[in-house]
Amino acid sequence: MNKAMLIVMDGLGDRPLKELGDLTPLEAARTPNLDALAARGISGVMNAIGVGLRPGSDTSHLAILGYDLDRYYTGRGTIEVAGLGMELEAGDVALRGNLGTVDDNLVVTDRRAGRITDTGPFVKDLDGLTFESITLLIRPGTGHRAGIILRGPGLSSRISDNDPHEVGVKVHEVHPLDDSKEAAFTARVLNHFLAEAHSILTKNPLNLKRQAQGLPPANYLLGRGAGYYKKIDKFEQRYGLKACTIAGGGLYKGIGAFTGMEVIQVPGATGLPNTDIAAKFKAALNALAGPYDFAFVHIKATDTFGEDGDFQGKLAFIERIDDAARLLLDTPYLLVLTADHSTPCALKKHSGDPVPLMMIGDGLVRTDQVQQYGERPCARGALGRLTGLQLMPEIINLLGLAKLIGD
Amino acid sequence: MNKAMLIVMDGLGDRPLKELGDLTPLEAARTPNLDALAARGISGVMNAIGVGLRPGSDTSHLAILGYDLDRYYTGRGTIEVAGLGMELEAGDVALRGNLGTVDDNLVVTDRRAGRITDTGPFVKDLDGLTFESITLLIRPGTGHRAGIILRGPGLSSRISDNDPHEVGVKVHEVHPLDDSKEAAFTARVLNHFLAEAHSILTKNPLNLKRQAQGLPPANYLLGRGAGYYKKIDKFEQRYGLKACTIAGGGLYKGIGAFTGMEVIQVPGATGLPNTDIAAKFKAALNALAGPYDFAFVHIKATDTFGEDGDFQGKLAFIERIDDAARLLLDTPYLLVLTADHSTPCALKKHSGDPVPLMMIGDGLVRTDQVQQYGERPCARGALGRLTGLQLMPEIINLLGLAKLIGD
Repeated sequence: MNKAMLIVMDGLGDRPLKELGDLTPLEAARTPNLDALAARGISGVMNAIGVGLRPGSDTSHLAILGYDLDRYYTGRGTIEVAGLGMELEAGDVALRGNLGTVDDNLVVTDRRAGRITDTGPFVKDLDGLTFESITLLIRPGTGHRAGIILRGPGLSSRISDNDPHEVGVKVHEVHPLDDSKEAAFTARVLNHFLAEAHSILTKNPLNLKRQAQGLPPANYLLGRGAGYYKKIDKFEQRYGLKACTIAGGGLYKGIGAFTGMEVIQVPGATGLPNTDIAAKFKAALNALAGPYDFAFVHIKATDTFGEDGDFQGKLAFIERIDDAARLLLDTPYLLVLTADHSTPCALKKHSGDPVPLMMIGDGLVRTDQVQQYGERPCARGALGRLTGLQLMPEIINLLGLAKLIGD
Repeated sequence: MNKAMLIVMDGLGDRPLKELGDLTPLEAARTPNLDALAARGISGVMNAIGVGLRPGSDTSHLAILGYDLDRYYTGRGTIEVAGLGMELEAGDVALRGNLGTVDDNLVVTDRRAGRITDTGPFVKDLDGLTFESITLLIRPGTGHRAGIILRGPGLSSRISDNDPHEVGVKVHEVHPLDDSKEAAFTARVLNHFLAEAHSILTKNPLNLKRQAQGLPPANYLLGRGAGYYKKIDKFEQRYGLKACTIAGGGLYKGIGAFTGMEVIQVPGATGLPNTDIAAKFKAALNALAGPYDFAFVHIKATDTFGEDGDFQGKLAFIERIDDAARLLLDTPYLLVLTADHSTPCALKKHSGDPVPLMMIGDGLVRTDQVQQYGERPCARGALGRLTGLQLMPEIINLLGLAKLIGD
């Protein structure tokens, strides 16, 4: 059975907490199902990017799926727009966008335009604008968000954000981040589009209506995280595995779409603490029982609790994951459970601490003495200490699918 | 508390010795304080340069402090002259120098000119000599030593030593080590300076007086270890930590100065077996209680005993370190104890065997089951096996100061 399920629990890794008797949330949680899997598997620890290196959410996942950052990562924009179902072409520059509110002096008064719930009726008038051989493509995201692509020759992602990331200040001019003519050109084109978009949005009847109602108009496009798209070899081409992504959060669907996986929508998968974990595991099992060879399952809220410093919430959520993991006890697939990075509750941010990793597959893996899924138990496991780029080769090897190097 | 102390015990690592019941000196030593730290910390082993690679004293320290050798290391000279307080400029070529004695046929009769204690009155007449747009800068070091800089355009460090490293042979001509015109030019310029220096030194009234007293004159400049200086990003720029060096040996002060650390002079810190280890630890603790964020403490004699094959001396000196380590038991700082390389008593020289590493910081590190500071206990620790270049990222991460890679 050459099929595998990769479960990434975002920000799962943590540090010992005095309040938990010097245990981490994962170590302190009651996790009989995860522990049963550890006892049947082989364990280790992993740094997605490298020892001591502190990964973002985008970079960590690319590395874990085997995509070298030097080659494939230029900014988060490309991944976000892929997650919105926009088809990228080589040479595109993509940005994450918000619709926000500015006053007559272009000072941002609301970065989310009163948290509007659908940017579709606003951005439709901007999609397809052209300037100096560049076309602006734009599509609504969730809530106040939108995906932006600049398409045409001679672009660069080495440009700054126009989003000032705070209110009460003027929107920024986009400026080039290096001396190339491509960066200067891209900044100039984007500044043009942003001014034109402001003019169009200001006249949108929906905004006139919002203002009459005392609501902030969605009158400015705030862009950030420009990324340059180079054609990448998709997951299936690379590994020969038909793959799907099951995630709640948009970025993680984006990672799946960016690497050419099918993104399976699961009702109840929210990317929030209320997410239906069992529904996600069931969907992954169904996908693997069907046409898929590889299921990437992403669970977000462990990271959210870590960033809030809420170790009790993190612990309780881990116990909910464990409860759902009962569904995984009898699967015939190679199971890989890990995290993208640590988010220690004491730091309230991502860290470069390694994450626990375990692989379970009867007859496939050499089991070790690890009996518990936790940061410190896993550190004693037989997998040792891996980097993210080593994970997929190990999975492909365990599945018996690795290509021979040499003769 | 984002502060750390890095203690490097030079040449600490060793191999099992039959005479010590198949234990290493560190394993055989009674080290209750180091062991208490190990029990509270996370351990591992480290190769400064790489698995099986045998580091010099200069290269190992650069790697441990995070400086890639390919980029930053060209020869020991630059580090030695930095340790003498000489300010390097990009493009300088620096050498370690001795004042030695030659006879009328330029045969070296004493490489240290009777171990003179101050080269200042001799080298002052050489400082500032010029030839073909190159200036010779020279400053006294300890004893018979001096630091030499060639400054000007078109220099290369790819030149041989004129120091023959033995007596009874003629001083060597400097010759280029590659085909570049820079190497040929540098060799020619240096040969000119060495001849001129010989002429000046011979006439120095102090030498005439020494000869009248039957003492060997300090009449020849012996140079070695040419290094080319490229501007480096200093430790504080790189890591955001205000750093100091506490060391007895000149090379290690040089490492500190070379990487832009403040070199704190500690009375009793000799770099010899008689060094006042407690005074060094106290100075480091004071520095960290004051304005410094990072203290690099170097302890030399472990290496010296190893090079002498004196395993009893090494063991006893380690017990002296342990005794002083009592001062470290209650520090609030991240403590990192390791070595630059192994110096097995059986080999009497540096080796590429990994060194024991431990990191202690309550709430910062995930403790492991290691209860003793030693080569083999540490090899079972949760840090796994690191390289020198991975050490600083791990420290910066544990301090919560790592920059996010990605978004």
